[in-house]
Amino acid sequence: MTIPSHVIEMLKKVRGRFAAEPIAQRMLPSDAEFTTLRPQRNATQASVDKYWARLHDPASQADQDALADPLTMANPDQFSANIENFIGTVKVPVGIIGPLRISGLNANGDFHVPMATTEAALVASYARGAYAATKSGGITAALLYEGVIRTPAFVFDNLFNAGLFVEWVVREIDALKAAAEGTTRHGKLVSVEPIVDNNVVFLICRYTTGDAAGQNMVTIATNALCEDIAARCTVPMKAWYIEGNFSGDKKASFLGLVTGRGRKVSATVTLSGAVVEKTLGTSVQAMLDYAQVANLGSHLSGQLGAQAHFANGLAALYIATGQDAACVAESAIGITRMEARGDDLFCSVTLPNILVGSVGGGTSLPSQSAGLNILGLKGEGQASALAEVAAAVCLCGEISIVAAISAGHFTRAHENLARRK
Amino acid sequence: MTIPSHVIEMLKKVRGRFAAEPIAQRMLPSDAEFTTLRPQRNATQASVDKYWARLHDPASQADQDALADPLTMANPDQFSANIENFIGTVKVPVGIIGPLRISGLNANGDFHVPMATTEAALVASYARGAYAATKSGGITAALLYEGVIRTPAFVFDNLFNAGLFVEWVVREIDALKAAAEGTTRHGKLVSVEPIVDNNVVFLICRYTTGDAAGQNMVTIATNALCEDIAARCTVPMKAWYIEGNFSGDKKASFLGLVTGRGRKVSATVTLSGAVVEKTLGTSVQAMLDYAQVANLGSHLSGQLGAQAHFANGLAALYIATGQDAACVAESAIGITRMEARGDDLFCSVTLPNILVGSVGGGTSLPSQSAGLNILGLKGEGQASALAEVAAAVCLCGEISIVAAISAGHFTRAHENLARRK
Amino acid sequence: MTIPSHVIEMLKKVRGRFAAEPIAQRMLPSDAEFTTLRPQRNATQASVDKYWARLHDPASQADQDALADPLTMANPDQFSANIENFIGTVKVPVGIIGPLRISGLNANGDFHVPMATTEAALVASYARGAYAATKSGGITAALLYEGVIRTPAFVFDNLFNAGLFVEWVVREIDALKAAAEGTTRHGKLVSVEPIVDNNVVFLICRYTTGDAAGQNMVTIATNALCEDIAARCTVPMKAWYIEGNFSGDKKASFLGLVTGRGRKVSATVTLSGAVVEKTLGTSVQAMLDYAQVANLGSHLSGQLGAQAHFANGLAALYIATGQDAACVAESAIGITRMEARGDDLFCSVTLPNILVGSVGGGTSLPSQSAGLNILGLKGEGQASALAEVAAAVCLCGEISIVAAISAGHFTRAHENLARRK
Amino acid sequence: MTIPSHVIEMLKKVRGRFAAEPIAQRMLPSDAEFTTLRPQRNATQASVDKYWARLHDPASQADQDALADPLTMANPDQFSANIENFIGTVKVPVGIIGPLRISGLNANGDFHVPMATTEAALVASYARGAYAATKSGGITAALLYEGVIRTPAFVFDNLFNAGLFVEWVVREIDALKAAAEGTTRHGKLVSVEPIVDNNVVFLICRYTTGDAAGQNMVTIATNALCEDIAARCTVPMKAWYIEGNFSGDKKASFLGLVTGRGRKVSATVTLSGAVVEKTLGTSVQAMLDYAQVANLGSHLSGQLGAQAHFANGLAALYIATGQDAACVAESAIGITRMEARGDDLFCSVTLPNILVGSVGGGTSLPSQSAGLNILGLKGEGQASALAEVAAAVCLCGEISIVAAISAGHFTRAHENLARRK
Repeated sequence: MTIPSHVIEMLKKVRGRFAAEPIAQRMLPSDAEFTTLRPQRNATQASVDKYWARLHDPASQADQDALADPLTMANPDQFSANIENFIGTVKVPVGIIGPLRISGLNANGDFHVPMATTEAALVASYARGAYAATKSGGITAALLYEGVIRTPAFVFDNLFNAGLFVEWVVREIDALKAAAEGTTRHGKLVSVEPIVDNNVVFLICRYTTGDAAGQNMVTIATNALCEDIAARCTVPMKAWYIEGNFSGDKKASFLGLVTGRGRKVSATVTLSGAVVEKTLGTSVQAMLDYAQVANLGSHLSGQLGAQAHFANGLAALYIATGQDAACVAESAIGITRMEARGDDLFCSVTLPNILVGSVGGGTSLPSQSAGLNILGLKGEGQASALAEVAAAVCLCGEISIVAAISAGHFTRAHENLARRK
Repeated sequence: MTIPSHVIEMLKKVRGRFAAEPIAQRMLPSDAEFTTLRPQRNATQASVDKYWARLHDPASQADQDALADPLTMANPDQFSANIENFIGTVKVPVGIIGPLRISGLNANGDFHVPMATTEAALVASYARGAYAATKSGGITAALLYEGVIRTPAFVFDNLFNAGLFVEWVVREIDALKAAAEGTTRHGKLVSVEPIVDNNVVFLICRYTTGDAAGQNMVTIATNALCEDIAARCTVPMKAWYIEGNFSGDKKASFLGLVTGRGRKVSATVTLSGAVVEKTLGTSVQAMLDYAQVANLGSHLSGQLGAQAHFANGLAALYIATGQDAACVAESAIGITRMEARGDDLFCSVTLPNILVGSVGGGTSLPSQSAGLNILGLKGEGQASALAEVAAAVCLCGEISIVAAISAGHFTRAHENLARRK
Repeated sequence: MTIPSHVIEMLKKVRGRFAAEPIAQRMLPSDAEFTTLRPQRNATQASVDKYWARLHDPASQADQDALADPLTMANPDQFSANIENFIGTVKVPVGIIGPLRISGLNANGDFHVPMATTEAALVASYARGAYAATKSGGITAALLYEGVIRTPAFVFDNLFNAGLFVEWVVREIDALKAAAEGTTRHGKLVSVEPIVDNNVVFLICRYTTGDAAGQNMVTIATNALCEDIAARCTVPMKAWYIEGNFSGDKKASFLGLVTGRGRKVSATVTLSGAVVEKTLGTSVQAMLDYAQVANLGSHLSGQLGAQAHFANGLAALYIATGQDAACVAESAIGITRMEARGDDLFCSVTLPNILVGSVGGGTSLPSQSAGLNILGLKGEGQASALAEVAAAVCLCGEISIVAAISAGHFTRAHENLARRK
Repeated sequence: MTIPSHVIEMLKKVRGRFAAEPIAQRMLPSDAEFTTLRPQRNATQASVDKYWARLHDPASQADQDALADPLTMANPDQFSANIENFIGTVKVPVGIIGPLRISGLNANGDFHVPMATTEAALVASYARGAYAATKSGGITAALLYEGVIRTPAFVFDNLFNAGLFVEWVVREIDALKAAAEGTTRHGKLVSVEPIVDNNVVFLICRYTTGDAAGQNMVTIATNALCEDIAARCTVPMKAWYIEGNFSGDKKASFLGLVTGRGRKVSATVTLSGAVVEKTLGTSVQAMLDYAQVANLGSHLSGQLGAQAHFANGLAALYIATGQDAACVAESAIGITRMEARGDDLFCSVTLPNILVGSVGGGTSLPSQSAGLNILGLKGEGQASALAEVAAAVCLCGEISIVAAISAGHFTRAHENLARRK
């Protein structure tokens, strides 16, 4: 039994369906003809119909009706700045939690938070956490830092030229900053840090991005900075790239955990022992005991930080408010802590990489805009508050899941609420 | 200048808005009265109206109309198994790419793939990658492994009892397997691996989950396994928890990268040099040169694996087909490789943690169901094919972004396609 | 101030010493003549003298005397199986701690442990930890797992052939096991797990290695396994490599943390409150408070597991007992935990990757052999006990440093004991 | 076979030696009497004899003679500033490689490098790499950055006070810098960066440390800084700790990889195709092919960076020159790259965390001092050059091992050179 049984199992499973030769056949490239979809930037009734004509079989008219419904088709062009090859909209159910009391540096008041998900029990769980937190006087939150990054890479023949390049950049930094900031009204280049690996130099360009999440803004600004370098720097350069796959854009990274990328927020609440017992059905000690094991699990499985399910809260909030759902990959890292404070329970989350905007991206689409309006955080001046709400929501989720697991309720909640499937 | 300037900048920014005392005030807990939303499992016109009555101010009737539109409200109860406290649906625009030719172990044929996103340029970019891949004979893909995990934790007084517990589990494994599998028609417990850290034992319980993504299934099965242990095991136990925060559920982890959690798929295509030049507007060598730098960036920034933006493709596909968008956090890790093959370019992705189902979760909601129907992958027997499609889509995205960055087109694409904002 | 001040500082520092042109000159390759040292496997007085003739200027006769002292030169050939190009021995001071009481699965009794280091305060600190632990009844320890790994890699043209290869390996596993085990009396091939990334297959070959640390043993055995594959497997293979840089040999890795490489040991002691106060000069609560912060630090800085300074104990023990000091890189990861047990303090360490042998490597050199003899753990049948001692020593170090930092004594100890420098 | 076979195997192994009850007995704490070693700071003949009296049985007189040999005992007190409870010295064999030509920013010339190890084949392998590099014109090396860090932690009641604290530190930074630098002639506080996780603030204090490795220096300086804070800062503080387990001292961390801790050096050489063939017995293409697989292995196993065996070179050099061998744990991370340059092979290493000094630590002990003298790098003004040598040595090791594995020679070398055991 030198080969693990699960490997053998899996091979049997494959073999069960195919004999060797057919598989080989099946996996070969093919030169069969095909006609590709013509790309469409501006969505119209006609363009949508044309796509659907192609999609019928396997899809049906009912499928078309579900995506290209009358409300969507009343003005398909409103989506043109957000998508190409438009065929309709997918309807993601939205639930509401609240009031969630937040005493934040930027967000302040009692919020109702829209959450879009198809996972049963998720909204109920966050709602429970929000109730416990609000009942305990609300969540204190503070935006600690902001700074979206792009990290262009520059390749040289050798280490010596890489060094000369760094020196040139340091000397020319004011002009470079001007070039970058010339592309944007709201973006400010806060710092440029060179990272050298022999003949390759990455520049960590860190920006504040006003009320936008800012990824496009920093791309365009950094591109201008790079082009200014390319135009004026006389150190012989083999190549430059707008992004050296270093910034952590759309992916979890330790750089993000250590230095942050996006907005960094801490949120905290001290739950009274009574609330833990009545609202959450468990005890402070039980939650602390589990927190210890959960922390051990996070280490042993090699997570980035230690938390339970930031991704659930972030994905639901991001989708409901027109944020970039793919950024959940980079945002869902950080730290959850629980500690005894006398008979009460201190609970805290810190998320170093929240990527949200109150303008730009999907925020101006009607239903996403509605999501921001429910929060009262649409438009200029609200992105920092939105980031604090995001962290506060994550804190609610952490409280609820730790309570549920410590009390042994976790499974039951999922069984009951997903009961119809 | 011992304090980094960005720290000083950030402090000024905070100070600019507040004086010290008001901040302190602002961040205190508050005992003001509040009435919480009454939780609602079954959505009705009345329940939705009631919530909206609460949400008006700051939200408007137009906001309500955008979420609780007539199509949505025609049958609000259809969402009840997927959400609580329902107030409507958020409409995420869907674009289509294809045909994407896949010669997979499970998926086979020319697919049109729906992608839901609000990020301009994303669909266009993936469409370009799909065209290049299909033009080159299509993508070979294979599901290599499947196995959703839960990792309950058991706490003992000491190491010795932890050891006795492991021994008991090994002895009783057949009964435990029966207990777990008794809760599910489709789930099979493939392996149980104990991980001991002194007095704490985690059991890595690995299941195949049929055509469901399977998180609920493995939770319920593992709960039964744990309750069987709790009922029969005589080794004195201090506590057990259904999940020791070890499985990597909803978060990126090295456990996931090393051993996989969910479905593991490799997808690959060899692009002809001609396609790289005509379709992608760059050269094989330019893509290889960039790939080397991108790989360096992935190491230096501490990513899990090395890839560019799996999260974009996964989030868009997950949302469009009723998958759990929060799972993007754990799914968006893995490896992208590009290598020379004569004058052509070998491109490969391997994703160890794809979490998808062709049944269950959000897959039966009308617009999500339509997404699966467009693929022809709804219902029983399709989950493995869906996982292969997910990997193939990610490969398209990797090809397109590497081409764009290597050619210097990346910024321009984002500028043009998000042009209206 | 967009460029961080430390970057500017560093550039000034470089510039202070050189002007640009001289640097360029200085860093060019040179074709000047040189004569290389002739390699010597068998050390003799003559060979040592010959090397030293070369080394005089800059080194002196006193330097030669310090390395090639009479004791060393009495029998230089005794080192020939451990080193090439021998010029003498470096004398690393050894201190002793103990008695350290261990109630282990394998190690049992009161041990005196030799530790070789040049870092002042290290031995004193570990001695203090040992005293506290022994005073509290001793350390319980258990070898939980053993399994040194090699991970050869096999490269194919494509995914399909990689799959056929895996199937072939599974089918032929008994013969392959025989081939591997035919090279060694003590090594047993425990498991072979294939990891596929498209066209590349890694085989995680896991061995028990008797009383040797075993790296050479598993290399030779795995090489035989690979050659058997190469000779008989008909799946077309592009290349194979004895190690795919996957096993974690000589480097920290999450694979090592998650699955272990080498011997995995847990060691634990419950310190009485009285011992914490009298011996360690702090309180249980103070240690717990610090442990919480230390755990947070480990997460935020991206460590592998959470511990304070396993490396100190391991390096000192490895050097004193003829182990491979380079393995400290992979061994010094794992988990330290401290928890309240009533008024007492539960302390535990788990090290997943201890690489030690009681035979082989440097263990038979005279002074290293003496180190093992002091422990009473030289020769056959002692490696598991030695691994338990290693973990127990690490536990002593963790106790002492956490106590020192929590009490504010850490700095003072280092100031006093390194006082002469 | 739900339980992996290796788990069952391991349990059998344990069970084979013990029955359950005896194990329990064996692992209990014991109150048996013991007398501890009296700690000794100043080593004398008498103190050494006294220890040995205790160690006889199990150790023998021969063991004592091996450690407490006449040369060592001629002046035992010379070790007193480096160790406590001294019982003698362990003799680690030293081999020499060279000449290694280095064209560095700081190190310049042809070096002979002493390496202390008991691993057969190690010195021969590095010697081969050195020959290939020197033959190709030598290694270009540059110290890119230096900065040893300490990260004290400060704990507050809440986030708000943590914020006030950061503000206070920023305001008082000049005084704090003076306090820190008042303790040291050579250390300079380069930057202080606050990292906030809710109520806990870490200060990343980064120093240059002159020619010392500097860990003690930065501890003492940071302690003074902390005490100045504690004395003057009026923000209510719950506790402070000299180190929040954040700096990466004695352990691998992503912080170290991303921002460096210690000296950061890049070293590079372009090997001619002829040298690769004649000296290394392989081809440029074969080395590149393997490098690609090795890079994949580094990702999939979750290493920090990508390299083969920095630890071997570092441990051998550190021990031979009186550096802290435990620092291998943190130093042995970084990046090795190999790329085609026409028909030649560009090879590069970057190590972000080299911890070496040319003064302090063990550098003034006679045999360690001899090691530095062989390099010509003892005393003031040489630490940067020593760091460049360390990186250059690692590069030699990478070249040699990649060549050996790509050529299939790796196993044979280990078989032959460890032939006597």
